[in-house]
Amino acid sequence: MEEETIVLEGHIVDSLLLAKVLDAILDVGADYHIVDFRIGRTPTDPSRAVIEVTASDNKTLQDLLDSLQVHGANRVDDTDAALSACDRDGVLPRDFTVTTNLDTDVRINGRWLSVTNPEMDCAIVVDDAIARTVPMHRVRVGDRVVVGRRGVRVHSLTPTTEGGAFEFMASEVSTEKPKALQLARVVDRMRAARERGGGILVVCGPVVVHTGGAPHLARLVRDGWVDAVFSGNGFATHDIESNVLGTSLGVSIAHGSHVEGGHTNHLRVINEIRRYGSIAAAVDDGYVTGGVMFECVRRGVPFVLGGSVRDDGPLPDTMTDVVAAADRMREYVGAIDVALMLATTLHGIATGNLLPARVETFCIDINPAVVTKLADRGTHQTMGIVTDIGPFLGDLAEQLGS
Amino acid sequence: MEEETIVLEGHIVDSLLLAKVLDAILDVGADYHIVDFRIGRTPTDPSRAVIEVTASDNKTLQDLLDSLQVHGANRVDDTDAALSACDRDGVLPRDFTVTTNLDTDVRINGRWLSVTNPEMDCAIVVDDAIARTVPMHRVRVGDRVVVGRRGVRVHSLTPTTEGGAFEFMASEVSTEKPKALQLARVVDRMRAARERGGGILVVCGPVVVHTGGAPHLARLVRDGWVDAVFSGNGFATHDIESNVLGTSLGVSIAHGSHVEGGHTNHLRVINEIRRYGSIAAAVDDGYVTGGVMFECVRRGVPFVLGGSVRDDGPLPDTMTDVVAAADRMREYVGAIDVALMLATTLHGIATGNLLPARVETFCIDINPAVVTKLADRGTHQTMGIVTDIGPFLGDLAEQLGS
Amino acid sequence: MEEETIVLEGHIVDSLLLAKVLDAILDVGADYHIVDFRIGRTPTDPSRAVIEVTASDNKTLQDLLDSLQVHGANRVDDTDAALSACDRDGVLPRDFTVTTNLDTDVRINGRWLSVTNPEMDCAIVVDDAIARTVPMHRVRVGDRVVVGRRGVRVHSLTPTTEGGAFEFMASEVSTEKPKALQLARVVDRMRAARERGGGILVVCGPVVVHTGGAPHLARLVRDGWVDAVFSGNGFATHDIESNVLGTSLGVSIAHGSHVEGGHTNHLRVINEIRRYGSIAAAVDDGYVTGGVMFECVRRGVPFVLGGSVRDDGPLPDTMTDVVAAADRMREYVGAIDVALMLATTLHGIATGNLLPARVETFCIDINPAVVTKLADRGTHQTMGIVTDIGPFLGDLAEQLGS
Amino acid sequence: MEEETIVLEGHIVDSLLLAKVLDAILDVGADYHIVDFRIGRTPTDPSRAVIEVTASDNKTLQDLLDSLQVHGANRVDDTDAALSACDRDGVLPRDFTVTTNLDTDVRINGRWLSVTNPEMDCAIVVDDAIARTVPMHRVRVGDRVVVGRRGVRVHSLTPTTEGGAFEFMASEVSTEKPKALQLARVVDRMRAARERGGGILVVCGPVVVHTGGAPHLARLVRDGWVDAVFSGNGFATHDIESNVLGTSLGVSIAHGSHVEGGHTNHLRVINEIRRYGSIAAAVDDGYVTGGVMFECVRRGVPFVLGGSVRDDGPLPDTMTDVVAAADRMREYVGAIDVALMLATTLHGIATGNLLPARVETFCIDINPAVVTKLADRGTHQTMGIVTDIGPFLGDLAEQLGS
Repeated sequence: MEEETIVLEGHIVDSLLLAKVLDAILDVGADYHIVDFRIGRTPTDPSRAVIEVTASDNKTLQDLLDSLQVHGANRVDDTDAALSACDRDGVLPRDFTVTTNLDTDVRINGRWLSVTNPEMDCAIVVDDAIARTVPMHRVRVGDRVVVGRRGVRVHSLTPTTEGGAFEFMASEVSTEKPKALQLARVVDRMRAARERGGGILVVCGPVVVHTGGAPHLARLVRDGWVDAVFSGNGFATHDIESNVLGTSLGVSIAHGSHVEGGHTNHLRVINEIRRYGSIAAAVDDGYVTGGVMFECVRRGVPFVLGGSVRDDGPLPDTMTDVVAAADRMREYVGAIDVALMLATTLHGIATGNLLPARVETFCIDINPAVVTKLADRGTHQTMGIVTDIGPFLGDLAEQLGS
Repeated sequence: MEEETIVLEGHIVDSLLLAKVLDAILDVGADYHIVDFRIGRTPTDPSRAVIEVTASDNKTLQDLLDSLQVHGANRVDDTDAALSACDRDGVLPRDFTVTTNLDTDVRINGRWLSVTNPEMDCAIVVDDAIARTVPMHRVRVGDRVVVGRRGVRVHSLTPTTEGGAFEFMASEVSTEKPKALQLARVVDRMRAARERGGGILVVCGPVVVHTGGAPHLARLVRDGWVDAVFSGNGFATHDIESNVLGTSLGVSIAHGSHVEGGHTNHLRVINEIRRYGSIAAAVDDGYVTGGVMFECVRRGVPFVLGGSVRDDGPLPDTMTDVVAAADRMREYVGAIDVALMLATTLHGIATGNLLPARVETFCIDINPAVVTKLADRGTHQTMGIVTDIGPFLGDLAEQLGS
Repeated sequence: MEEETIVLEGHIVDSLLLAKVLDAILDVGADYHIVDFRIGRTPTDPSRAVIEVTASDNKTLQDLLDSLQVHGANRVDDTDAALSACDRDGVLPRDFTVTTNLDTDVRINGRWLSVTNPEMDCAIVVDDAIARTVPMHRVRVGDRVVVGRRGVRVHSLTPTTEGGAFEFMASEVSTEKPKALQLARVVDRMRAARERGGGILVVCGPVVVHTGGAPHLARLVRDGWVDAVFSGNGFATHDIESNVLGTSLGVSIAHGSHVEGGHTNHLRVINEIRRYGSIAAAVDDGYVTGGVMFECVRRGVPFVLGGSVRDDGPLPDTMTDVVAAADRMREYVGAIDVALMLATTLHGIATGNLLPARVETFCIDINPAVVTKLADRGTHQTMGIVTDIGPFLGDLAEQLGS
Repeated sequence: MEEETIVLEGHIVDSLLLAKVLDAILDVGADYHIVDFRIGRTPTDPSRAVIEVTASDNKTLQDLLDSLQVHGANRVDDTDAALSACDRDGVLPRDFTVTTNLDTDVRINGRWLSVTNPEMDCAIVVDDAIARTVPMHRVRVGDRVVVGRRGVRVHSLTPTTEGGAFEFMASEVSTEKPKALQLARVVDRMRAARERGGGILVVCGPVVVHTGGAPHLARLVRDGWVDAVFSGNGFATHDIESNVLGTSLGVSIAHGSHVEGGHTNHLRVINEIRRYGSIAAAVDDGYVTGGVMFECVRRGVPFVLGGSVRDDGPLPDTMTDVVAAADRMREYVGAIDVALMLATTLHGIATGNLLPARVETFCIDINPAVVTKLADRGTHQTMGIVTDIGPFLGDLAEQLGS
């Protein structure tokens, strides 16, 4: 039997970390013995558990401990991390250490270095005394990458004081909730972020425009509530189409009926923006006079439009290389404290992959399955709100406007 | 400040009970201090926590402790339960103790009596040295009912050994699961129930027939895998319609297209069964020659068809008084170990309200929202499977048939 | 080969009736020859088609023609309807004519009588010179019932002028619609009904309360926008619970969090109303001071609470016999011009079964499947709106309030 | 008042084209007068309508006629198409004619040229006597593009003989259908395509792998039922991961439980394939020994993996430039007769945008909203099947295997 000891620290009972760890151990047929346990006697006291884990073979044991570390359960460890150099651009050493989106340290020459810009599913590159996460495609020959299981420490997430773990769990994903209260929570967190100088990110899909939410979102941008926008070709196109031609995918925003010839409107709008060369040029020239993209250009709010294989056109601002688009998004996520994902699956998941776990994320969609899907992928700090995005944005803009 | 001490015992870490309790305490603005904690050092050891709960007023404190008791967190208590007599049929004393679906004891004359037939949202009537749950509408003048908060003890649920708490949590409700494995689990639990002599209950909706699942379910009944069927007028009607006329709601089961005149088929079938006086009479007379209801009649498997305000006809077997129907269902739930809820919301919720927490329940539906809804209502031992019920029943019958 | 001639009259091209009829003929392997066709040359002109239908056997042909008549395609016919007397209470003659929800005439002694109170899936009882629809369970021995296929004429529905057939089709059931416009349409139709003295029916489920919509609906009742309410035990209970205790299924309406002891609140409320004997008595006595049920009692707006097998309690006003409940609902549907189905499947379907086709029906639910389900069942005049019911009712009350 | 005459020919009654056109005319406030109408007297006869359309201004009229042409309603027209040269790469003349996905002719020098490779939302470039559709981004300076509304003729779609229009309408999108029959239809159409030498395209998402459907799809590829595969990085990764490591997104395909360390499996697989340089190289080298991608490589079935901003890695075969990916897909769609869209929204919509209307398309997904969304976008020949993709593929492979 193979055996190793792990330690968990922090709010491990109320964050469910301890239960998850014990469950995961048994789930793979391993066994545990709790060597030491100090419970936090009051709500602010941290707890600490030392657990001896036993498995029948070393591979099972080490794979298990790797998966536990994702949540912040670390091996009792006082060795340095091993490093291995890349021998091919864009390819990592076979046993590279995969990152989580939690704060992480790596031990080099006996010192624990904090890894900058936490992002899940990346590698850790160490350069001088600096450790940073790097996505696979960006490593270059010679980069020294952390490999194996030793010398890496992950910090478990401290739950926000206002809501315990159960508030964030999936039964929360329900259509049967008092919506005014869920809205109040978003308002509250956006205000708190604003006060402490934290960035607010909006990720949005075209349904925002179709359901009449774009003017409200434009107002939020105009009033300074948005620091970055991640979206796609469809959203930007329909936002501009609704400004220039009064339709969204050919449906009149004002009358709700399909207008004559409307199905080609978005193509003509894309074609004209291509003629201008960029959305900013079209705004400067007076072709676009309102809407979310207009407000972004006017206020200098950065936006990233990630391309997709279903795009018409696309707009000249749409980044057709998706890897480059994700890299551009990475430039902005470091400053973000609160993220709103508005009726978007593709861009929501893409953004969720990049965000550190500490970012408070609200996923608002009329389809419970979308919310569950986002929460299923490690973006555990996500609060899901199942509601109709158009009216929701109207209420949000009104409450923040005052 | 008001203060009271509670104790939690059992698998309170891995069942998440401890985390839930601490979360709930903070959620209402109360505070806690963990006086004593003994963790189970190995997976089979129970844990035990003694927690001092403090709140600003006694009502908040007592309401909180009531809500904690639903999960098995009990006051440290050595007083007898108080009893109060009903002064009106069908009306309980104002402060009656509301039951959970967990095993419960009540203290009478210094002795802890086990309450028979656990069912949530009922009252406890004590008669001689017997305590039993009674639904509100069945109490009679003079019945002595447990009132208040003292002298009642609820046992927390022991998780089944095979799956920890997280297996039953809502992220489990997803369309993206390997379906063969979820099926294998149902097969496994049905076999285990059969071996230990436990009853298997099937609760089903008309979609079972529409999607072609009825012949498979009929086979399960014929082969002795079903001990009771709870359903409604629609399921029974379409099951018989598909036998007698080859259609379900007028759609040909064999060809999938609407057959001529088919929309009236179910009405004619209901009318003929009404002429026979009962499904059993129609079976005996040779009018019905196959299907789920036929097999139930032939094997003597009891069924309860609860009426609904949308029913056509209804069939003579359909109990039009819904309170009487629920009472009839109560007669069968005591012997049930495994319950399958097949594409049914109304009857699934109705049954979930009656089942003790110890019954392993599988909710199979193509709509994730239905599964979440059932799990949201206290039927926490429910495992949800999001799949298409027709093919699922075919696979289930095949696997159990061998 | 068997052959018969049918005639279709009215707006049979734009209502899709002609296309449906031709499609249905081919679908069952029959054939057609259009003997005569006069198209309406302008939008207000009716069209008229005379179609010879051929099938290989008479049963197929007659079943086909029966199913076509559901939409208003009638046999060329100048015989009287056949009548047959019931020989058992609650049981119809075997070949009774099944009604549609369209205006219908029956030929007796050479005269076409208009059938009163159109309702689908019923029989036609003729008494003196009066023909009326009667549900199966209400026929009595000796009632003379129309049987067979002759002497019955169904009028096709005239589409409302404002929206063509395609506006009502299922692609309409989408989350991606400008919601303000769908709201405007409901407002418009409610105002139009009010002006012409037509009744407005509200059918609602408990989610109306959970999502915070009850105060808005109460305001609509108070302001005279509602003439009848059909619902169930759950809605009425949570509406009263939220008034008396400030919670809905134990969730605080004001704070959105589960309150201590809240899960038992609805049971205590039911118990107290049972003690008063009725909701009206509880209102009169001052126990209930607001909410939808309160406003109904105060304004004398009739309500029908149909029981269901999942009900807790139930409330004394809940009709536990579901057949009696449907009969009570039948008393009110005759005066209804507009029906709103708010987040309810069970009661929505039940009501849809009873309404004449001419009633404009709006089905509002966050789940597209519910809307599709209602539209699938012959309630073809239904307009579906996929949105969140709480905010929707807030906006509706605001717009109608001005 | 402005006036113009249009003509509709073909199966315009049963394909609903006539009803749609009349509805659309009234919908925009225009008026019509049917000048001439010849109905097809038998099912095989075409019908023909000549309709005078009147509107208050010329823009409304022309926009309306443009939108009607999408369905095959053409202006009575004997002028040549106007051509205009592009003055900038990737930018079309302002009033370019937008294509539909129906067969189209364009009149040049008095002759009607058939436009090759119909694709919606493109332009028509005329070069010598050849007219072809070209997407916006691929036009070059000097290309002569059809502009304006004259000299273009669109052919309405002939419904397939087996199913009328109503079979394809959205109420078809329902979970409550006999699934064996919907399956039989897919089998039938795939066999028919195979017999006449038509290509079969499979478009698939990662849920195919998660639900256990990949081995069945691999078998279909191996047995020669698939001529091209369009998918993304996720599907290919999980397909290979399940072959190499036995997991899909870290979930064991054999045991259904999360395996230790499994969440990193897909990253390691991507990294290794990157080391090999391509999937084909990894197959040749024996790293990948089974699965869908393996069978594609072995049989030489072409695949296009379109990149997406949420991709991990990505695989070296994934085309990170989405415009290039769509262009690659265009190379294969010409030979396709039947398309299966399996649990994919993104790639399904992308493919739907490229397919000619004549391709029979089946969209299979457990979520009714996905099916509705695909059908909403002009891919009207889509038949939706709401079912669980894993078991569905098992049944499909079994039926085609015999």
